[in-house]
Amino acid sequence: MAVRVIQVGLGPIGERVLCQVIERQGFEAVAAVDVDPEKVGRDVGELLGLEGGRGLAVQGDLAATLASTAADVVALCTTSSLGSIMSDMETILGARLPVVSTTETLSYPHFAQPELSRRLDELAQIAGVAVVGTGVNPGFAMDTIPIVLTAACRNVDSIEVDRLQDASPRRLPFQQKIGAGLAEDLFRDMVSRGELGHVGLGESIAMVAAAMGWKLDRITDIVEPKIAEEDVSSNDVLVKKGQASGIIQDGTGYCDGEPLIKMHMEAYLGAPETVDTVRVFGSPNLTSTIKGIEGDVATASVAVNAIPKALVAKPGLRTMGDLPIVSWWGGGS
Amino acid sequence: MAVRVIQVGLGPIGERVLCQVIERQGFEAVAAVDVDPEKVGRDVGELLGLEGGRGLAVQGDLAATLASTAADVVALCTTSSLGSIMSDMETILGARLPVVSTTETLSYPHFAQPELSRRLDELAQIAGVAVVGTGVNPGFAMDTIPIVLTAACRNVDSIEVDRLQDASPRRLPFQQKIGAGLAEDLFRDMVSRGELGHVGLGESIAMVAAAMGWKLDRITDIVEPKIAEEDVSSNDVLVKKGQASGIIQDGTGYCDGEPLIKMHMEAYLGAPETVDTVRVFGSPNLTSTIKGIEGDVATASVAVNAIPKALVAKPGLRTMGDLPIVSWWGGGS
Repeated sequence: MAVRVIQVGLGPIGERVLCQVIERQGFEAVAAVDVDPEKVGRDVGELLGLEGGRGLAVQGDLAATLASTAADVVALCTTSSLGSIMSDMETILGARLPVVSTTETLSYPHFAQPELSRRLDELAQIAGVAVVGTGVNPGFAMDTIPIVLTAACRNVDSIEVDRLQDASPRRLPFQQKIGAGLAEDLFRDMVSRGELGHVGLGESIAMVAAAMGWKLDRITDIVEPKIAEEDVSSNDVLVKKGQASGIIQDGTGYCDGEPLIKMHMEAYLGAPETVDTVRVFGSPNLTSTIKGIEGDVATASVAVNAIPKALVAKPGLRTMGDLPIVSWWGGGS
Repeated sequence: MAVRVIQVGLGPIGERVLCQVIERQGFEAVAAVDVDPEKVGRDVGELLGLEGGRGLAVQGDLAATLASTAADVVALCTTSSLGSIMSDMETILGARLPVVSTTETLSYPHFAQPELSRRLDELAQIAGVAVVGTGVNPGFAMDTIPIVLTAACRNVDSIEVDRLQDASPRRLPFQQKIGAGLAEDLFRDMVSRGELGHVGLGESIAMVAAAMGWKLDRITDIVEPKIAEEDVSSNDVLVKKGQASGIIQDGTGYCDGEPLIKMHMEAYLGAPETVDTVRVFGSPNLTSTIKGIEGDVATASVAVNAIPKALVAKPGLRTMGDLPIVSWWGGGS
């Protein structure tokens, strides 16, 4: 039997998740919920640009949807902030449904938000279901992959992760999130207000540290502009020479003052390639290179692929490090 | 508290596993068992070439050791063949201890040996513990890694895995297993008798297929000699031009007649590098390259790293695809 999914949140990522749930074997979309009055009432097929209607109208009231829909799981794709999804989480867990969410700060919230994590873990345990935050990053490229690699090691001293992304083919909100086209001053202002940059680097660092058994003293996370050396453009954005074409972001996890985990991200228009590199320093030393992890597709893929594993996971707040290996599944229901 | 491990089998791999159990935080060696009368009675510290004795003498009787030793898990590193470990498995599961084993055919026995798999699963469930077969290959490089990568995909059409290994730094039994130094005729004779080649390629293919939900019709596994184009040598073996310097092995998994999974291995003296490449064809296409997976260290590492996950796994015959992510752990007990 297909896994019956209620999709909550129909922004760019939520739409992609719902698309996969509709199109892939083993999943069935049983409801879609969004707060946007422009979307409520519309057929999801039409909203997603699929051929033909799906006989499924977007609903506006989460609690009412949960009460009236037989479902196995909720896919929650609303915001990046754990605090702002707590109310929806309480509603969903009150209905005793497991949750897979692309909320970045939910991927490993124990370090940065221990109180909320405890509360959520408690709610999920009471509900007897698992809650998992995941996506391509955080959730896969910069945390799951390095964690998996260390299986081959008898000792690990430190870990470095580099993610280079050409932002040109990404959706416009992503290009905006990395400040493409901003003057340098404005870029820095927005960074200082927390309005720019990748959300989740600290969570990836904390997740890797937890898997390694390293107790971190602190995590740093610094966002700098990548300044265009010549004009560069995507379908949506023109970046002039001297403006920011994207971000350079560095995160470091310190254990007893030593920088044991270093994560470096560059995401900008015109980057030469999209490549993920992991270096594990230990015995043996390992270097992994992955090409082709396309962010927007992959975030939805990782979330959808995590659903079957969340259904069999131990109740509570879980992370990618706790689940059985998340992988694609094409065998149908 | 440290995980108390009984090491069964003190061949080249078993010795390496025991070494890690002794040296790494979080593990404690509580007994070591081997059938070799030359080893029974010797102190494991002396046997492993460690400095100082360990106050732990190798024992010869598995059942007696199990009866007299308080332990949490058995690490079983005796042979490659599932059939030949069944008697020991029954003894160990009779003592209700979980097992992590480097027995290659145990890594995913469901396809090739469904009857034995069912029997073992039943015994493990009755004992209320997990049994896991793993190592670097099978168990990691050619199965876990491709399975993990597909998490980023919305669709997977086919998978190719290439493992190239310079056999020069490997232990002598490995160099013998790949036929280094044999005349081509003798190499082919030994292949035809099943005495040469990597054991586990079919298991890796079956494990990947199961994770993808692909029902395989058949698996092929063909071993050819790599013929040395000039003299080449390791510390232990001299290969003359025209002799076999190692193996070229190709495995294919067919689903509805289509070759969906292709695995290619080359392991020979003088190979230019040691590198593992995975290509996932689908949406998106992914290419992963890992350098540095050194076989002998890594097999022991993967087995030891799997122990904590086997302890919390669902009782029964488990595989790397069922366990929570196996990774190194340095946080102590």
